[in-house]
Amino acid sequence: MSKKISIGILGATGYAGVELVKILSRHPLASLSFVSSQSYAGQKLSAVFPQMKGICDMDLMAPEQTVGVAADCVFSCLPHAASAALLLPFIKKAVKVIDLSADFRIRDPHTYARWYKTEHPCPELLPQAVFGLCEWYKSDIAKANIVANPGCYSSSIMLPLLPLFRDKGTNISMVIADSKSGVSGAGRTLKLSSHFAEVHENFSAYSIGHSHRHIAEIEQELSTAAGKPVTITFSPHLLPTNRGILSTIYISTNRTAAECFAIVKKAYGGEPFIRMRESSDLPTTGGVSHTNFCDIAFTGGEDGRPVIALCSLDNLVKGASGQSVQNMNIMFGVPETAGLL
Amino acid sequence: MSKKISIGILGATGYAGVELVKILSRHPLASLSFVSSQSYAGQKLSAVFPQMKGICDMDLMAPEQTVGVAADCVFSCLPHAASAALLLPFIKKAVKVIDLSADFRIRDPHTYARWYKTEHPCPELLPQAVFGLCEWYKSDIAKANIVANPGCYSSSIMLPLLPLFRDKGTNISMVIADSKSGVSGAGRTLKLSSHFAEVHENFSAYSIGHSHRHIAEIEQELSTAAGKPVTITFSPHLLPTNRGILSTIYISTNRTAAECFAIVKKAYGGEPFIRMRESSDLPTTGGVSHTNFCDIAFTGGEDGRPVIALCSLDNLVKGASGQSVQNMNIMFGVPETAGLL
Amino acid sequence: MSKKISIGILGATGYAGVELVKILSRHPLASLSFVSSQSYAGQKLSAVFPQMKGICDMDLMAPEQTVGVAADCVFSCLPHAASAALLLPFIKKAVKVIDLSADFRIRDPHTYARWYKTEHPCPELLPQAVFGLCEWYKSDIAKANIVANPGCYSSSIMLPLLPLFRDKGTNISMVIADSKSGVSGAGRTLKLSSHFAEVHENFSAYSIGHSHRHIAEIEQELSTAAGKPVTITFSPHLLPTNRGILSTIYISTNRTAAECFAIVKKAYGGEPFIRMRESSDLPTTGGVSHTNFCDIAFTGGEDGRPVIALCSLDNLVKGASGQSVQNMNIMFGVPETAGLL
Amino acid sequence: MSKKISIGILGATGYAGVELVKILSRHPLASLSFVSSQSYAGQKLSAVFPQMKGICDMDLMAPEQTVGVAADCVFSCLPHAASAALLLPFIKKAVKVIDLSADFRIRDPHTYARWYKTEHPCPELLPQAVFGLCEWYKSDIAKANIVANPGCYSSSIMLPLLPLFRDKGTNISMVIADSKSGVSGAGRTLKLSSHFAEVHENFSAYSIGHSHRHIAEIEQELSTAAGKPVTITFSPHLLPTNRGILSTIYISTNRTAAECFAIVKKAYGGEPFIRMRESSDLPTTGGVSHTNFCDIAFTGGEDGRPVIALCSLDNLVKGASGQSVQNMNIMFGVPETAGLL
Repeated sequence: MSKKISIGILGATGYAGVELVKILSRHPLASLSFVSSQSYAGQKLSAVFPQMKGICDMDLMAPEQTVGVAADCVFSCLPHAASAALLLPFIKKAVKVIDLSADFRIRDPHTYARWYKTEHPCPELLPQAVFGLCEWYKSDIAKANIVANPGCYSSSIMLPLLPLFRDKGTNISMVIADSKSGVSGAGRTLKLSSHFAEVHENFSAYSIGHSHRHIAEIEQELSTAAGKPVTITFSPHLLPTNRGILSTIYISTNRTAAECFAIVKKAYGGEPFIRMRESSDLPTTGGVSHTNFCDIAFTGGEDGRPVIALCSLDNLVKGASGQSVQNMNIMFGVPETAGLL
Repeated sequence: MSKKISIGILGATGYAGVELVKILSRHPLASLSFVSSQSYAGQKLSAVFPQMKGICDMDLMAPEQTVGVAADCVFSCLPHAASAALLLPFIKKAVKVIDLSADFRIRDPHTYARWYKTEHPCPELLPQAVFGLCEWYKSDIAKANIVANPGCYSSSIMLPLLPLFRDKGTNISMVIADSKSGVSGAGRTLKLSSHFAEVHENFSAYSIGHSHRHIAEIEQELSTAAGKPVTITFSPHLLPTNRGILSTIYISTNRTAAECFAIVKKAYGGEPFIRMRESSDLPTTGGVSHTNFCDIAFTGGEDGRPVIALCSLDNLVKGASGQSVQNMNIMFGVPETAGLL
Repeated sequence: MSKKISIGILGATGYAGVELVKILSRHPLASLSFVSSQSYAGQKLSAVFPQMKGICDMDLMAPEQTVGVAADCVFSCLPHAASAALLLPFIKKAVKVIDLSADFRIRDPHTYARWYKTEHPCPELLPQAVFGLCEWYKSDIAKANIVANPGCYSSSIMLPLLPLFRDKGTNISMVIADSKSGVSGAGRTLKLSSHFAEVHENFSAYSIGHSHRHIAEIEQELSTAAGKPVTITFSPHLLPTNRGILSTIYISTNRTAAECFAIVKKAYGGEPFIRMRESSDLPTTGGVSHTNFCDIAFTGGEDGRPVIALCSLDNLVKGASGQSVQNMNIMFGVPETAGLL
Repeated sequence: MSKKISIGILGATGYAGVELVKILSRHPLASLSFVSSQSYAGQKLSAVFPQMKGICDMDLMAPEQTVGVAADCVFSCLPHAASAALLLPFIKKAVKVIDLSADFRIRDPHTYARWYKTEHPCPELLPQAVFGLCEWYKSDIAKANIVANPGCYSSSIMLPLLPLFRDKGTNISMVIADSKSGVSGAGRTLKLSSHFAEVHENFSAYSIGHSHRHIAEIEQELSTAAGKPVTITFSPHLLPTNRGILSTIYISTNRTAAECFAIVKKAYGGEPFIRMRESSDLPTTGGVSHTNFCDIAFTGGEDGRPVIALCSLDNLVKGASGQSVQNMNIMFGVPETAGLL
């Protein structure tokens, strides 16, 4: 077997980071070259996450020290703005990078600035970046050096809708995405809204309507597919679970649920990670937990009511680290499912 | 103090039943006359629910044996069809009854038959029955002998919407209610969908679109308020919690969120159990847990998007047993909040 | 009815504090005079805890400002050391105080200093303080001006064991308390060990063996009852629940489980909050949730094995705020169960 | 690569069964030959477990029909008594079998009959059966045709204790195992004690003292290691989690915790699935979730108190299906960790 892809991870001690380490540690064609962490530099990864003992006992480097380390591919699980800044040296060295932050997702730097309340750190690189929704931009990803891994909520909304917006015979006049996510999506940073006794046996909405940042990339991609501006309503909610997103999406359309199903099924024909679900067997978060699958179903639409798309994925896997490895597999020409099934 | 209201409870060993016993056992103006259970007749209630020891140690009677027992008011927590049948003897004796099942909620027996797949056991009584949404039919409830306690989901959808549908200046062209409920709403009967390992760390939709039975009463009441037929889309989801309902309701309307808020706030001006919430402080299930409060907020609606109503309540309290006691208080002319604050 | 007891609460915005506000707000013979909070001074309590809206909308005072406010009884839910310091002015004014911290629990200031790693702020007051285990020191509490509310774990271990240690015919040569507590016991302060995704679907031990601070008061009280030094092994564990403690306690003794049961049952004969449980109906945390009950059972002990005591209580109620109100009721000569059933 | 091991699974639709299918479906050296289920025969496995779609879409056979199907190794996840009966035809055909039930764990059929309340279905085979605690009987397992996979609780108690009981210089006079398990251990059969609303936000003990069936195999193995009869106290508890066991084990011994740690560490020197934990980093259920690891630590023991062993494992993996695959790997001479890391 050929030499393994050597990997660096910036920001390995958040939930997406450690999930990425787990996936890559059992990937048959990849090996870790470095893992970094600002907060825990100098400690072993397995000291920060005891469950990783025997799986990955590498030392965590300070991010600044990683630049000199050889790697074929660098993943960043850092927050936006910091992410692009720390990836920049690797990009300059022509190392392929996969950014799990939003920094390379938004093609228009003004849109980025408006939603993320900061100037883009390197707008000149945006034209090179490919939006890493694997099933949608596969051939571009295969040639890319900079891949922007999509957001978790975004993936669960775009995957069922994009084939419909692209379809010429389908008109969609309204999109309401009512999404529910487990708490790991809020990260490992301490805050009252992630404090156990505030979340457990509770359920709440937040940033609903048109205020959550993922709207920027969702509207960008839906508009591109439609060839005209698309706007949505998006309501995220916080589930008292560790993992999982379920998006219940209401669309006003000229299509029936069965027609939507057929269009989407055809679009994702051979895709290994998209599972079409019958309306008798709706997607659930438990059904995709700890996997890279994205489950999609369509129902409703009778008597002029909205068609309802349901989409579930594991926010840490298909919604983050799993999809980023899928991107890496595509970029390096190895089997797309390697390390992910 | 005057003589206490003597109470009988049919079906005291479901989750709504035992919650009702808890509430009534601390009610200053009521006392239990009998509690019944088909499955556990002959046992103490506190043998079936050990947490009730010292709170209610009454023996459970078989339902058939309760007819001879004196009571001022009988609550039924039985399943539909069985409920009306077992309440009938009490109704004939002019005992006031409060039915937590759907049997007396639907004014049209054909609509009942269509949604509940059974003929109504006593359609001749339907004209006497009052729909027990306390804040909406208070003066009728005060005079009623038969009160139909509303469904849990229904309450969370009707309470924020009814004032808008009644308002002459408000047009509403679409209602989508995306509701999420804790598992106690599914009852104590064993089924795989309530099995711990199937629910915990999971989240799922069920009966979505236009198929859940609560639609019958919701559309009935919204249509009555609007003075014309109203139809809705309703998507229930199962939360991995014991208690609580949060409904996120999207409405297409000529009103802004602020106007909706003002209309609803005015409608419920002096109501002790309705709490209007600012959009900075949205309703949550935890915020109403173990209380008879119903929290309501409005947001969204910018740039032609739907206005979003949020409504939370505890499905076992305001959504069932608490509201039934509120109904009793109104029917017997005692303070509406007695036993409930 | 006579004038209500006027109450002040120091530290009202922790979990014990807000539970205390809830209990007192429905207490028929008490009314709140002030609520204080260092962190949230100037805000309404119901702004910090939205679920309290309509229940307690008082403004939170800075602790320093409370001294001038008239009150018959002041509760402190502050951390140890801070607690005694801020109660001191009230004690000097002969206001009755109930301290939920450990400051007045340990009779020997050197023992206090050893376990709490700080000098006691007012050792001269320790002789006046009464250990507020209601069922054990009732007559002393009735006369006390300073009551030290016991710890949550401690209560669940002392209540089943004290009657045995006091009993002359009972020899106990070993005590191992394996205790499990919900997360609210760890407070509202942010820490990784209370972060949702670290606790949910997880279970862990901490401070096991002989290192948790509650050992000081447990050994003090068991030794006092026994009339000789008693030492224990104590292993706390963190449950992925909001509330509840279950202690499984192994004792080597000359008594059978049935004899232990009889001795303890007799000791707590008329106590309204102690419920003896048969071995077929063991205590659970759910069975006492949101109540002031303490459930106790005995089992095991066959063939020379240890007798096993099980004890459950709600850590925020009987383990903290509920017991403190029970103490207040005793101190002010009102019915012991007022506000608690 | 050589031909893969062909596998049959009896009872594939319980929680251990489907976990086994998951593990084997990603095992590089095994392939499924049949999966069976009494209740769901004729359906696809992925119709019963939607999450398995695309992972295993095989049809479920009735158990009786499996005998003719060729397989190198048959696993049984059936209940005891049924398990041995249905494995018998395979044993007679010299197919290697791994039984996850208790049928082949107990060497003495009278002991089996006493604990399992039924005569052993084939006592003549017991002498051939090997107790499949991989780290303890590896060389016997390598030669065995019948392997009895140990119980989940049992594994968590035996693994930390066996090296101590075998050690000549270690005396142990008392063992108390206080164990806590997630609900999946109670299986997929509907019962009130696994009903979501009865378990969630609850914690309870059951079968404590000396009544749980796993005691039979634990005492058998500890006695064998010690060379003399050993008896224990064992208290299982039900955690509101899906997965995981943590056993907190108190032992009276002449050894310190550090000495115990050293003895056990040495005994498991090269074992890939045993992770020794420092007392600053105690085992947790979350730390081994979805892995085949068993984490062990020792603490306590000061001033004559008991030494405390802590041991965690995932009840469905190292406690059941993972260990059974580990057994298969040993039996077939493939790398012990294949499919398990």
